[in-house]
Amino acid sequence: MSNPAPKPRARAGGRMARRSLRAMTDSTMLPGLVNSLPHCEVMDGAQVERIDNASMDILENVGVVFRDDIALADWRRVGADVRGERVHLDRGLVRELIKTIPSDFTYHARNPAHNVRLGGRHAIFVPMTGAPFLRDLDDVRRNPTLDDLAMFHKLSHMSPALHSSAHHIVEPYDHPISQRHLRITYSSMKHSDKTFMGMTTSPKNAEDVMEMCAVLFGEDFLETHPVTTGNCNGNSPLVWDETMLGAMRAFCRRNQPVLCSPFVLGGANTPASVAPAVAQLNAEALSALAYTQVIRKGCPAIYGHYLSSVSMKSGAPMAGTPEISLMNFMIGQMARFYGVPWRTSNTLGGAKTFDAQAGYESATTLSAVMHAGANYIWHSAGWNEAGMHCSVAKFVVDAEQCAMAYRMAEGPRWDDFDQAIAAVSDIGPGGHYLGHPHTQENFQRAFFLPELFDNNSIEQWMAEGSQEITARALTHARKLLQDYEEPKLDEAKNEALLDYIARREREIPAADALNQEF
Amino acid sequence: MSNPAPKPRARAGGRMARRSLRAMTDSTMLPGLVNSLPHCEVMDGAQVERIDNASMDILENVGVVFRDDIALADWRRVGADVRGERVHLDRGLVRELIKTIPSDFTYHARNPAHNVRLGGRHAIFVPMTGAPFLRDLDDVRRNPTLDDLAMFHKLSHMSPALHSSAHHIVEPYDHPISQRHLRITYSSMKHSDKTFMGMTTSPKNAEDVMEMCAVLFGEDFLETHPVTTGNCNGNSPLVWDETMLGAMRAFCRRNQPVLCSPFVLGGANTPASVAPAVAQLNAEALSALAYTQVIRKGCPAIYGHYLSSVSMKSGAPMAGTPEISLMNFMIGQMARFYGVPWRTSNTLGGAKTFDAQAGYESATTLSAVMHAGANYIWHSAGWNEAGMHCSVAKFVVDAEQCAMAYRMAEGPRWDDFDQAIAAVSDIGPGGHYLGHPHTQENFQRAFFLPELFDNNSIEQWMAEGSQEITARALTHARKLLQDYEEPKLDEAKNEALLDYIARREREIPAADALNQEF
Repeated sequence: MSNPAPKPRARAGGRMARRSLRAMTDSTMLPGLVNSLPHCEVMDGAQVERIDNASMDILENVGVVFRDDIALADWRRVGADVRGERVHLDRGLVRELIKTIPSDFTYHARNPAHNVRLGGRHAIFVPMTGAPFLRDLDDVRRNPTLDDLAMFHKLSHMSPALHSSAHHIVEPYDHPISQRHLRITYSSMKHSDKTFMGMTTSPKNAEDVMEMCAVLFGEDFLETHPVTTGNCNGNSPLVWDETMLGAMRAFCRRNQPVLCSPFVLGGANTPASVAPAVAQLNAEALSALAYTQVIRKGCPAIYGHYLSSVSMKSGAPMAGTPEISLMNFMIGQMARFYGVPWRTSNTLGGAKTFDAQAGYESATTLSAVMHAGANYIWHSAGWNEAGMHCSVAKFVVDAEQCAMAYRMAEGPRWDDFDQAIAAVSDIGPGGHYLGHPHTQENFQRAFFLPELFDNNSIEQWMAEGSQEITARALTHARKLLQDYEEPKLDEAKNEALLDYIARREREIPAADALNQEF
Repeated sequence: MSNPAPKPRARAGGRMARRSLRAMTDSTMLPGLVNSLPHCEVMDGAQVERIDNASMDILENVGVVFRDDIALADWRRVGADVRGERVHLDRGLVRELIKTIPSDFTYHARNPAHNVRLGGRHAIFVPMTGAPFLRDLDDVRRNPTLDDLAMFHKLSHMSPALHSSAHHIVEPYDHPISQRHLRITYSSMKHSDKTFMGMTTSPKNAEDVMEMCAVLFGEDFLETHPVTTGNCNGNSPLVWDETMLGAMRAFCRRNQPVLCSPFVLGGANTPASVAPAVAQLNAEALSALAYTQVIRKGCPAIYGHYLSSVSMKSGAPMAGTPEISLMNFMIGQMARFYGVPWRTSNTLGGAKTFDAQAGYESATTLSAVMHAGANYIWHSAGWNEAGMHCSVAKFVVDAEQCAMAYRMAEGPRWDDFDQAIAAVSDIGPGGHYLGHPHTQENFQRAFFLPELFDNNSIEQWMAEGSQEITARALTHARKLLQDYEEPKLDEAKNEALLDYIARREREIPAADALNQEF
């Protein structure tokens, strides 16, 4: 990707500079985004309170099912009204509990230069996860392996606007399910020194992730510094299950943040209407956010969700629709109302190939989440076919799109304004600016140059082989992988991690159920 | 397109309703959009004034070239400081002149049900124009004919979210250049009863458009009602030429609005920086807006622009970039500062085919212009290859995307909120909503169903022929053309229009220069 970094570079003018620009592939990570765009707020204060009030009514009167004995005992202990599996939460208790969730925190990477902040205007881009298929470097759709997963971790590392290598971007089928979380976690840690995610596919798997984090960062460091994030999906409407709650406890006890993510199929497991769906989702998210503080007061936590609307024609989940954008705007308002960092999903969509549908869906959602002011922007690269595959071509294009959104969210610069206005006088009517000193000094950072968009004439495009974006993106991905340099793990830590994995692989039977998360 | 209309439909539940939904293709035009989204304002008040001040300094001290003797005489008459071709405009004079531009007005169609408002929160979608090539119903790239133009006018008529049939969507090469404007205007008038644009390719051509409008609407009606819009491009930096100024006078004298559109190639004919480029563009737009009021005080006029940034690597114009989005946000702020309706360009992009690049570029710009609060959203369907071709497939997909953006810009509805929240109690934890009365009553309007996005499983998609969006869109376009019914012109008016064209074609020699506009 040429010139994605927003920071001023050294001055260099003319042909020499253009030549060096052409050769440059800068994979330096962009700092965590500070999103300066005004929030798109589609609700007034009274409407925000109406959602809050409806959610609190649901929590008090309908209640939330916690299918987990430990959680039920925890809720009883803090005075909730527990009837069977159903927990009725008083709004006073909920507000009291969520008050201790930090409004922002630093998410630590093994390379401290790659630490990022989350919350308020601070945001990060995280690649997609969970794909049972990939479209590979030849655009062939097939089941992924650990090598494929490593490839995506490398591409994450090489993409300036991605702030994380996530975890199981693709599901590595060449390793036993029950042991996969160990290899996935190791792959994230080894191939990138950015932040990464932790598997929550079972409470025990989550414990393993915590142990590996303790090896990498040190037990004490972990206690006081968030170093990973785990996702916990709710079963909408209004159910949290044992697997997710157990994983949540594993993370929160070690002070590691989870994403509390109701899984919304709008119209199927929520009312068929935007505002009431948000009210239900909000109740669900609040119930889990509150529980994180029952587990450990002050532990960071993230307001999550997975959003799709259901086609009432075919039953299929849909993304990139106007209602998804509206729900993002509204959820952003609710999360800010409670002062909790929030997660969204970025490039969700249903296209089967990397065609124009995929482009529209992804760009529509990316724009929406930027204007919504999301903090943890997950599924930011590679997602296609409703999450069934991760596409290499789409991965690198999405990553560049995130860099473009990043640039937009920085807003215009003003430091060169007077100098540039003086240039208007110098040039005068009918002139051109290419040779002016201001242009020479500023062209490298003035306008983003998308590496993967072709803006040449059709004649030049044909002369270069009439390649559509998929082909160009795959060539680019190959080049990134060629240029990749592994950010080496400390040798002792690497040994310790491998020892841990070896021990656990001896202990864990090589067969188990496959759990997916979104 | 299924279910694009925002208005509530008759209640109908269950399988019957789903069946009727499947068959329905509703081509009823959506009313002019009332964009309820908050404006994305990336400048504070002081920054808006800084742009205003810089633009006024440019107008006073650098001046603007009007390459046209009549305009120079007009400017002298109103007291401007004219030195040769360069007109220095005092900020007091500029502010005084633009004060009389209406902040909003009704744009009349021959079918009064298709009248639309422009200005404030009122916005319209207008298809692309000016393409020298098309990609046709077989996705073949070739030169267009009058029949192709008629096809695009029919598709405009059939697309609910398009509020105009524009004018020369494609350039009809099978008719002499010098007479084309007559056939183009007639095609717009005949194949659709929505609003249309008027050609400004020369002052005389513009006069012909005015005469044809007088035939269609009546001479007196024209005097007091905007019935068409003409685009006048500036030559940035700071030049307006005789052709555009002559066409502007033809329109304004008859009280018809023009779009005052500086043609920005950011970095080539503006400073290489976003804010100063906006300051220059703003000065250019203001100079032409002021001139419309010199021509006729109180005539409606539109703040325009054509925006691209130039790749400093290859010299190619670029679209869909972060700077284009930022400039849209800023231009919106400036137009609102002056209280003038404003035009933007929607789906600009450089892809050579309807691939994912085209999707990203189009959706990014569509989102930006919605959040920017643009009023006259031109080039909203079909644009590809930097405007070199209009794609049939992309045309119908873009039109559906506009319908989706329209839905988003309406914001969430609240009228069913309490009823839907009651449904949450009815269903309770772990239930599903598909059979609930609220769902049955609301599913048709709850979530937009994009007709041209495929959200089915890959197995079903393969069973249906593994069609990417281009193939599906072309099938859809064929169906729209099959279903098309001509909104008949009044017979006497039709005769009078044909007589006018026949007379003018006898008078105009069949050879002339080709003028393009953007």
